[in-house]
Amino acid sequence: MDREVRTEIPQDASPVLVEVWRGQMVESRHRLSIAVVDPHGGVVHGWGDIEQPIYGRSAIKPLLAIPLVESGAADRFGLSAAEIALATASHSGEPRHVEGVTAWLARAGLTPDDLECGAHWPYHEPSLHAMVKAGIAPNRAYNNCSGKHAGFLTTALHLGEKTKGYIQYEHAVQQRLLGVLEQMAACELGDAPRGIDGCGIPVIAMPLGNTAFAFAQMADPHHLPPQRALACERILAAMMAEPFMVAGTGRYCTQLMQAIPGKAAVKTGAEGVYCAAIPSLGLGICIKAEDGAGRAAEVALGQVLRHLGILTDEEAAKHPELLTPEIRNWAGTLTGHLKPSDELAF
Amino acid sequence: MDREVRTEIPQDASPVLVEVWRGQMVESRHRLSIAVVDPHGGVVHGWGDIEQPIYGRSAIKPLLAIPLVESGAADRFGLSAAEIALATASHSGEPRHVEGVTAWLARAGLTPDDLECGAHWPYHEPSLHAMVKAGIAPNRAYNNCSGKHAGFLTTALHLGEKTKGYIQYEHAVQQRLLGVLEQMAACELGDAPRGIDGCGIPVIAMPLGNTAFAFAQMADPHHLPPQRALACERILAAMMAEPFMVAGTGRYCTQLMQAIPGKAAVKTGAEGVYCAAIPSLGLGICIKAEDGAGRAAEVALGQVLRHLGILTDEEAAKHPELLTPEIRNWAGTLTGHLKPSDELAF
Repeated sequence: MDREVRTEIPQDASPVLVEVWRGQMVESRHRLSIAVVDPHGGVVHGWGDIEQPIYGRSAIKPLLAIPLVESGAADRFGLSAAEIALATASHSGEPRHVEGVTAWLARAGLTPDDLECGAHWPYHEPSLHAMVKAGIAPNRAYNNCSGKHAGFLTTALHLGEKTKGYIQYEHAVQQRLLGVLEQMAACELGDAPRGIDGCGIPVIAMPLGNTAFAFAQMADPHHLPPQRALACERILAAMMAEPFMVAGTGRYCTQLMQAIPGKAAVKTGAEGVYCAAIPSLGLGICIKAEDGAGRAAEVALGQVLRHLGILTDEEAAKHPELLTPEIRNWAGTLTGHLKPSDELAF
Repeated sequence: MDREVRTEIPQDASPVLVEVWRGQMVESRHRLSIAVVDPHGGVVHGWGDIEQPIYGRSAIKPLLAIPLVESGAADRFGLSAAEIALATASHSGEPRHVEGVTAWLARAGLTPDDLECGAHWPYHEPSLHAMVKAGIAPNRAYNNCSGKHAGFLTTALHLGEKTKGYIQYEHAVQQRLLGVLEQMAACELGDAPRGIDGCGIPVIAMPLGNTAFAFAQMADPHHLPPQRALACERILAAMMAEPFMVAGTGRYCTQLMQAIPGKAAVKTGAEGVYCAAIPSLGLGICIKAEDGAGRAAEVALGQVLRHLGILTDEEAAKHPELLTPEIRNWAGTLTGHLKPSDELAF
């Protein structure tokens, strides 16, 4: 079947693709599996076990934003590109993120209390310190997933569904997403292993290669029904137009999309997952670090984009933080760096 | 030679010894190498590549505290068990830690400005928030390594050495430590790979098995010269008597040593290193997570101690956080747990 991911990669241990150097020696090593897939399901490049089931976590938020746009909910509530980017975000809780989500909710007649994710302090340290100093505790809009949840609520509202309980597996919102994932990734998920995400929604295991395929379909949506294709294009365009909204100050997603404007939409997820869609090449990428390390998935993504020519040599030279991020100690002394291993070559 | 670590463990990839479960599936996997060594250099148990060179990082702080006690500096400045424990600590910057180091420095006529580590905010969130609220910025005594640095300064002072520059490889303090490590681990380190630690001191690569051997010699110091043997016993006793000072609220070192009072002295280090000394069995343990994950080294240490009978079934049942720590999401929902893999069995 055209849409199934074909692979000859053996099911053995993932190779060491990222090294952590300190002084004269590699101190730690990260093993990863990576699939680069085209919109026909062909595996263009692969490392490790790309048939392994993975939880896409927040890296698949661009897929989870599809119903928001496809259903017409985004237009009904007049969502801007920045707000659609927030729907795909794991944001750092900086004022623009929190104010953005709060204003969007208000336009839909909702408040942060309607979000069913927990509250947590901003990842962004200056924002956290400013709040502590002012005696402000975070509400649910500060949760890094608050934009995704606002999208779920908005979609439910638009379709006349009960908003309460929208994070439950059985709720129409989640069942609709299950269908979208099955269609985009071309796999049956009814019996897939599942669990609960950091923000309370279900996580459904999909094969790594199929997850990359879903992003390939976003990148080149010409196989998809027109409304779905338009939604995919609009979501990726919003992410690339508003990289700050997808993550925040100093975050890899934001830095990378700012470094290669308009060339790739990328999204990180917990436990070392990274996904990307490259419209110009019609390719989807999914990366999973065996050990769950985000630092490894970042460097691996940068290197894959460099090999694909999406991150040019000039851009790579200008942004060493994307491929060989420095490790500095508390006094600011350079003590090491991460780098792609020699095995991560095409 | 009696003191060399003998091993027949092959040099292949480290096995998966710790699993991260979420819902119905293992989400991430950690590979580790572990050596359990006796004071004659015999490898009692081993997993993975125990001849690999590793940076012991903060996990070898108990070894680095030896000159402080052995030289007589600890007695000259009247150090308590709590202060000796601080010299081995990676503390969380809670008031008792910071006040302890500051008072010790003052008795030696020094201030936090004499410490050559950088300053950073406390790991302990309530302490951090209290400081931010009060407008207090951290000085160097808040650095998690400040006790170790206070020990280095105190030793230099006692021995009439210049204190300035004590973090440099060439300084008498660091050269003395190099000798102590060579003697305790029974290996030549003059040409060993080296780098700089998070707190500015040199890190010297030692084989994993030799690092475990150094802790075995601490655990059963009867081979050592009397002053050295007494220093080892006093350092381990201080750590076991003052587990809070070694780490802090909610930290694994503290929780574990509180759960098994007097039975093991354990110390974590950055990049997934853990060391332990078990006086009753005369055993030393060194653990290195290939990927640098501290969460993995913790669970592995707990399981090794359980297999050795140091963490009893009753204690393990009472402290599930030591072997199968829960993963909860921002709303407090239980979403997964870590656990030792079936391969981590004796």
